[in-house]
Amino acid sequence: MPFTTPFADRLNNVETSAIRELFKLLGKPGIISFAGGFPDSALFDVEGIREASNAALTSEPGAALQYGATEGYNPLREQIAGFMQAKGATDVSPEQLIVTTGSQQALDLLGKTLISPGDKVIVEGPTFLATIQCFRLYGAQLISAPVDGDGVQTDALEHLIAEHKPKFVYLIPTFGNPSGALLSLERRRRVLEMAVKHRTLIVEDDPYGDLYFGAPPPPSLLALSAQVPGSREVLVHCGSLSKVLSPGLRVGWMVGPAELLAKATMCKQFSDAHTSTFAQATAAHYLRSGRLPAALERVRAVYAERAAAMGSALRRELGDAIAFVQPQGGLFIWARLTGAGGKVNDGGELARRAIEHNVAFVPGAPFYAAQPDASTLRLSFATVGVEKIEDGVKRLGQAL
Amino acid sequence: MPFTTPFADRLNNVETSAIRELFKLLGKPGIISFAGGFPDSALFDVEGIREASNAALTSEPGAALQYGATEGYNPLREQIAGFMQAKGATDVSPEQLIVTTGSQQALDLLGKTLISPGDKVIVEGPTFLATIQCFRLYGAQLISAPVDGDGVQTDALEHLIAEHKPKFVYLIPTFGNPSGALLSLERRRRVLEMAVKHRTLIVEDDPYGDLYFGAPPPPSLLALSAQVPGSREVLVHCGSLSKVLSPGLRVGWMVGPAELLAKATMCKQFSDAHTSTFAQATAAHYLRSGRLPAALERVRAVYAERAAAMGSALRRELGDAIAFVQPQGGLFIWARLTGAGGKVNDGGELARRAIEHNVAFVPGAPFYAAQPDASTLRLSFATVGVEKIEDGVKRLGQAL
Repeated sequence: MPFTTPFADRLNNVETSAIRELFKLLGKPGIISFAGGFPDSALFDVEGIREASNAALTSEPGAALQYGATEGYNPLREQIAGFMQAKGATDVSPEQLIVTTGSQQALDLLGKTLISPGDKVIVEGPTFLATIQCFRLYGAQLISAPVDGDGVQTDALEHLIAEHKPKFVYLIPTFGNPSGALLSLERRRRVLEMAVKHRTLIVEDDPYGDLYFGAPPPPSLLALSAQVPGSREVLVHCGSLSKVLSPGLRVGWMVGPAELLAKATMCKQFSDAHTSTFAQATAAHYLRSGRLPAALERVRAVYAERAAAMGSALRRELGDAIAFVQPQGGLFIWARLTGAGGKVNDGGELARRAIEHNVAFVPGAPFYAAQPDASTLRLSFATVGVEKIEDGVKRLGQAL
Repeated sequence: MPFTTPFADRLNNVETSAIRELFKLLGKPGIISFAGGFPDSALFDVEGIREASNAALTSEPGAALQYGATEGYNPLREQIAGFMQAKGATDVSPEQLIVTTGSQQALDLLGKTLISPGDKVIVEGPTFLATIQCFRLYGAQLISAPVDGDGVQTDALEHLIAEHKPKFVYLIPTFGNPSGALLSLERRRRVLEMAVKHRTLIVEDDPYGDLYFGAPPPPSLLALSAQVPGSREVLVHCGSLSKVLSPGLRVGWMVGPAELLAKATMCKQFSDAHTSTFAQATAAHYLRSGRLPAALERVRAVYAERAAAMGSALRRELGDAIAFVQPQGGLFIWARLTGAGGKVNDGGELARRAIEHNVAFVPGAPFYAAQPDASTLRLSFATVGVEKIEDGVKRLGQAL
């Protein structure tokens, strides 16, 4: 009789994502992929990172290679606080944030710290897939709040909060994955006000806010909290260098109330002791070098061009069979198949046909924690050049 | 009314360690500390790591800075498999291991993957403090198996396995933290045989096995499993570069049955997506450079000298008021206060007095998941030069 591993009950709450199966098909030669969620590695500031890591090893080799504080490497916490201050969260101090191993770990620590099995958590519909799975592993019961072109619908959100009294509400207000939506300034205020009124913790995940194409987005909930009395004590903000510098460093952070950060730090001690000090010291030196603003300008310009190209091509090639809001930042176009002219209106079906036409994207249904909209799809323009975008969208049109 | 964070129930199972409180006192000027659990950062091969990281950024900048596979960076998995093979685990292939963010994350993933609240786990008494807390956060009920100078007592362990039918047994067989004990070859075989007989999963944590002072230790349980039919399918092995290269890289690994690794990989996806590819690519290049054996020789020689110096000084200065087995490797001397001559026989009391004499160590009681032995203490010789070791032990004698 073979040995059967006695897995924990919590694993029954999740499954390996359907998207992973799709990704196995992407090795097909000649395929144009809009399926990824990655930044373009051709845009990484490799020389800047090399200089930063060499500077870290020269000036503080012990600190860069030794065990470090679970809360994070202090010079990096200072740099991150400065980065947040420059984006309008002027009152964030280094002590008000901890460094995490990517913002994925911030989500994991929130799950570990806050979610007991059966607890309710409100997320956007659609939301980040790894958030859904992460919170479910801790036994969360997820409630889905509807999203439109201006982000989460605040009237509906407030009803859901009043009805379900969730442990917390998880939002990606700025160019979220997958919706690409930008929560309006008015709705941002409303979210903070309802958090205070209902005494509900809000988690703002903000990995994409720096990737705007035209004007900067409205202030983050964190920055705006200075204007809404009492909101800061019910607000957690997660940030990351993954989309602005490099995902491979795995450097993220979490700003939050002191008591919550203390518990999250304790949990982190037993999760991975601390985030790589080598990566942290490198990131600290990079941020100090002053190269980030120029690097971000380049990245924004490239993504803006690709987003515009994809939007035009979609309108040209798919016409009224597809509907979407042109994104103002981020990595994604989130679209809906209308079925106009008797065309396919199921994202999963189109994804299968698309693979046959050598183009790939991710169907939208898995991004919903509940009530999936099967007509949706997510297209990333971030890693594909303009010509290939036009080619790929042509193929999509043929697959339709 | 101030907002009260609604923490998860699992936090009731743990508390911030007493040792952390002690560590706050270590900033006192002039103190000699045997309290740490760190390797000596003066022994890090900084130039080797610098070359490796530059090579990684030159030869594969995209891979070193981009998102990577959750299982780990393949060239690193190959290097780690080679490292394990060279230590006698000749049949380990890269596919049989995943890279973790330090071996602390391997423990966390084992907890997440295997432990349901109320599940029993057998650990050594004493064992690694962060293991106790990590497993308790997942709701484990810990059972403590007695340890002597030859490691865990296998007769007692087998009785406990038969009685409690644990989810798994967690052992640090080689120079463990804190006991420093070396599990004998005969007991290693018995552990594997009882794992097969009782169909019980064994977790071997092996961060210190390379730090031997004279002859190499007996083969790891992993290496030995080739000789005990059926044992490999009930064995998990955790390794780490923290004690042999640098803790700051946060590169560890876990070898285990395919089904378990698949679930642990799924969990890791939602814990931190993957371990820093920058750190992984650096580690891969370092291991490929062939510098590790010579670096390890230097480290072993230094720690061996310090361990010998501390042992002699303890016998000289504390005489029969202290009892310990001279360690054959690792970072620690684990000792017991005998009370001979009416001297202090409580580790906590001596720790307090020692601080007044400007010397620090960690009392042993917190390292027990159950039935603490209050007469024990842990002394690390790793980061203190020989002269200071002699000074510090003299002060300990005065504090006694």
